[in-house]
Amino acid sequence: MFIDFNGKQIYAESHGQGTTIVLLSGLMMSVKSWRPFIPALSENNRLILLDFLDQGKSSRMCEPYDIALQVDAVKRVLDHLGITQAVLAGISYGASVCMQFALKYPEYVNRLALFNCVAYISPWIKDLGAGWTAARVSPEAYYHMTTPFFYSPGFYNRNLDWISARKDFLIENYFGDADFLDSIDRMTNSTNGHDVRERLCEIQVKTLIAGGRDDLLTPLAEQKYISERIPNASMVTIEDCGHATMYEKPECFLTLLTGFANCQEIKLQ
Amino acid sequence: MFIDFNGKQIYAESHGQGTTIVLLSGLMMSVKSWRPFIPALSENNRLILLDFLDQGKSSRMCEPYDIALQVDAVKRVLDHLGITQAVLAGISYGASVCMQFALKYPEYVNRLALFNCVAYISPWIKDLGAGWTAARVSPEAYYHMTTPFFYSPGFYNRNLDWISARKDFLIENYFGDADFLDSIDRMTNSTNGHDVRERLCEIQVKTLIAGGRDDLLTPLAEQKYISERIPNASMVTIEDCGHATMYEKPECFLTLLTGFANCQEIKLQ
Amino acid sequence: MFIDFNGKQIYAESHGQGTTIVLLSGLMMSVKSWRPFIPALSENNRLILLDFLDQGKSSRMCEPYDIALQVDAVKRVLDHLGITQAVLAGISYGASVCMQFALKYPEYVNRLALFNCVAYISPWIKDLGAGWTAARVSPEAYYHMTTPFFYSPGFYNRNLDWISARKDFLIENYFGDADFLDSIDRMTNSTNGHDVRERLCEIQVKTLIAGGRDDLLTPLAEQKYISERIPNASMVTIEDCGHATMYEKPECFLTLLTGFANCQEIKLQ
Amino acid sequence: MFIDFNGKQIYAESHGQGTTIVLLSGLMMSVKSWRPFIPALSENNRLILLDFLDQGKSSRMCEPYDIALQVDAVKRVLDHLGITQAVLAGISYGASVCMQFALKYPEYVNRLALFNCVAYISPWIKDLGAGWTAARVSPEAYYHMTTPFFYSPGFYNRNLDWISARKDFLIENYFGDADFLDSIDRMTNSTNGHDVRERLCEIQVKTLIAGGRDDLLTPLAEQKYISERIPNASMVTIEDCGHATMYEKPECFLTLLTGFANCQEIKLQ
Repeated sequence: MFIDFNGKQIYAESHGQGTTIVLLSGLMMSVKSWRPFIPALSENNRLILLDFLDQGKSSRMCEPYDIALQVDAVKRVLDHLGITQAVLAGISYGASVCMQFALKYPEYVNRLALFNCVAYISPWIKDLGAGWTAARVSPEAYYHMTTPFFYSPGFYNRNLDWISARKDFLIENYFGDADFLDSIDRMTNSTNGHDVRERLCEIQVKTLIAGGRDDLLTPLAEQKYISERIPNASMVTIEDCGHATMYEKPECFLTLLTGFANCQEIKLQ
Repeated sequence: MFIDFNGKQIYAESHGQGTTIVLLSGLMMSVKSWRPFIPALSENNRLILLDFLDQGKSSRMCEPYDIALQVDAVKRVLDHLGITQAVLAGISYGASVCMQFALKYPEYVNRLALFNCVAYISPWIKDLGAGWTAARVSPEAYYHMTTPFFYSPGFYNRNLDWISARKDFLIENYFGDADFLDSIDRMTNSTNGHDVRERLCEIQVKTLIAGGRDDLLTPLAEQKYISERIPNASMVTIEDCGHATMYEKPECFLTLLTGFANCQEIKLQ
Repeated sequence: MFIDFNGKQIYAESHGQGTTIVLLSGLMMSVKSWRPFIPALSENNRLILLDFLDQGKSSRMCEPYDIALQVDAVKRVLDHLGITQAVLAGISYGASVCMQFALKYPEYVNRLALFNCVAYISPWIKDLGAGWTAARVSPEAYYHMTTPFFYSPGFYNRNLDWISARKDFLIENYFGDADFLDSIDRMTNSTNGHDVRERLCEIQVKTLIAGGRDDLLTPLAEQKYISERIPNASMVTIEDCGHATMYEKPECFLTLLTGFANCQEIKLQ
Repeated sequence: MFIDFNGKQIYAESHGQGTTIVLLSGLMMSVKSWRPFIPALSENNRLILLDFLDQGKSSRMCEPYDIALQVDAVKRVLDHLGITQAVLAGISYGASVCMQFALKYPEYVNRLALFNCVAYISPWIKDLGAGWTAARVSPEAYYHMTTPFFYSPGFYNRNLDWISARKDFLIENYFGDADFLDSIDRMTNSTNGHDVRERLCEIQVKTLIAGGRDDLLTPLAEQKYISERIPNASMVTIEDCGHATMYEKPECFLTLLTGFANCQEIKLQ
């Protein structure tokens, strides 16, 4: 379905019934990326997927904006669907939106699941982002600048056929498409001001933080930092896994997300 | 309920309905230890708990035995209950039984969840076990020899009231009880021959291995070893967590066990 | 040589010439423990070894004391030998003395090398110490309560002959000797007030912190804590190594200590 | 000095006296990169530095070649200088040459120090290398594609002035210079066949392997792999350090290299 948000269209899908999981994508993903996960994620839950502004089927933007706009887009979707409480989950860019959402609209969030996330956009990540823009000279350059870093070296080396097919697909369909690359640029730039480091202590909701041992873009130290500051957080490290957790370790991703979203409260001490 | 096993009584409980989870305890635990977890674990699943021989309400043994006997005791319980397939889960001693069960009766196991486990009883662990026997001189000595190593230093230092109450409870109720300590000795010795290192490659079922970053009894290196040899295994490390995962990080324990037991198969590559 | 310290005798040795390294032992060690290391450590350096009060050939104490007394004993040795500046190095108990020394007598210290150390004696470690006292019922119990935790499981399992010989030696010569065990008790208790956490930021001198990946007594998290608070500190983790670094990885120990003691200053940024 | 090698000129320097250290550079480095380290490294040692073919002041190549050629270039330098035994040390590309040298000319090597190295050039690294070539479209693109990955995010973010000056320097002097970039391409391609995985077990010499916790180009798992296969190897992990160890942690680099090169043999077990 499409939902109007200040004259822009936000594409969203709702699948299944049960405790609501809102699952937010990373850059270069979209609702489509989750297609193989929908049966598992909607079996016992209502699953909300959406394309951010500048992503998938949602409207393209013309000007720079801040990631806070995506936070309000998510809220618009929830309000439109009459959802007042949900487990909020996200990966990478989507996890940044999650943290900002949990700070701005805490009453909507009953649990928070953050995969491969950072609390702020450091100069180092900014320079990687600038490299992505610089790599727009050719689809191949763009591939080489971006994609190898999404995976752990181990996964990449063990799945060369899959990687190769994906490379061809990305180069043919996306990395030569100026509109797509413009939208990635805008989304990337929208995070320039992302910095919730000082406010992590305000997040009161039960939080799960999942990192990949071999994540090259949002290294474990970042997740450790976050988990030490959100009062009610636990952290697990997925071994032998890079940045794109749901592709490298789909069972772990599903185990963690569905297990966390659905398990009862327990208090021992 | 009590189930006859070659003239011994095995105590078992069945809770709830759904995909069956058989959850096996560690040393110094029993069905009672899981009491606070039962609502969460049986909400969407049939949960089978049992006391091993020499544990909880099950019969005490008079002579030494091998851990393989516990494997057959578990099988007896499943057969009695008409369970032909289950998610097999265990922690520490219980995880050793799980691995041996999965090798001997693979047709009963559709998934395997191993918490804080080792593939073999090394001389080092044997010497710890010998220390436990040597510490039987006083309940206090026994406490000091065993309990501090069950927890991560961080958890221990942060939960001194809980630890202190537990110390009093254990010293008063268990660590001065010769029958209890005899049964622990026998269970400990039953693992002396536990060594599945060469057979890990035969375990075909989807396996989740969970370790604690600060586990002092079954250190992470052991779990890494196992996860690299079981073909269909994923491993997660629970940060800031010692050996007694279910007490230190109950939400992570529940997230991983219920998530893994219930999530659908997915195949991306 | 023996040096008078308030009526007590401190045993000390000086070997070689060059930049002075003062190397302080852990509990259950003494000057004798370093015998095989002396040629390597004194080849290009003046090496000062000493037995703490209640250790090796130094005087036994009759009453409880604080570890601060050992700090002053070290200072007495340096003054007696006319040493006004040295590289201060220590392992475990010796590293605690090093940190306190560097805070009390900073003018004596030009570099600080801390192996397997903690910034404070937590309740967890205190309870281990209480276990040591409780284990005095028999030399075997004492062995089992203490020694297996000094090593990484990997080292222990790979060096069973050496471990076995050491076990016999310790049980025969030390662990049945009430005087020895009394002195260990007093030294252990002398650390009860050790807590330099809030003062780590005052240590200005260049500091090397070395931890063992598999250290079960002073886990890595402790060293990480220290290295993040001493302004001029670097930290290295020795892989596949437990608490007794100099026995498990003697080459790494020598590499780090001599390299750090002797390498010139360098400033790139 | 320049040394003839099959009609090509190899530039080499010799500094100081003592046990010889041959120190081999990584890609994008040269003898000049070590300038600030020479006093410390030659104080007690004879330090040999050299520019590989296609590096620094050595001859440029016209055609593709294998890294084995660099191995023979190093041997030529040693023979010319009459060096029959040395501590062989290298970082990244230089460490690859070290390993191949130690396998081909073991009689020349008495110790081996490997910083930030890999045992083989995996498809993943090859794809990074292809990205470097693709990034030649502009000096800025080349910078973004390469340099941020040489450092840990932590170091990068803490040293923005230094990084910024380095960026300007590299862009102005190197990353727009086609000759320089051609030589980097050739050196990169020379490693395509580098694979010593099956032969690591043949390296008999005492070996030190040093990795950076946050190394994004040659991740720790690679060094772990190597350290588990060279029989006489120890491994240390430098905390809070990326790929360019000598820039990020110069004291650790010097400590490890000089300590390892100069410390006496010791045998405890």
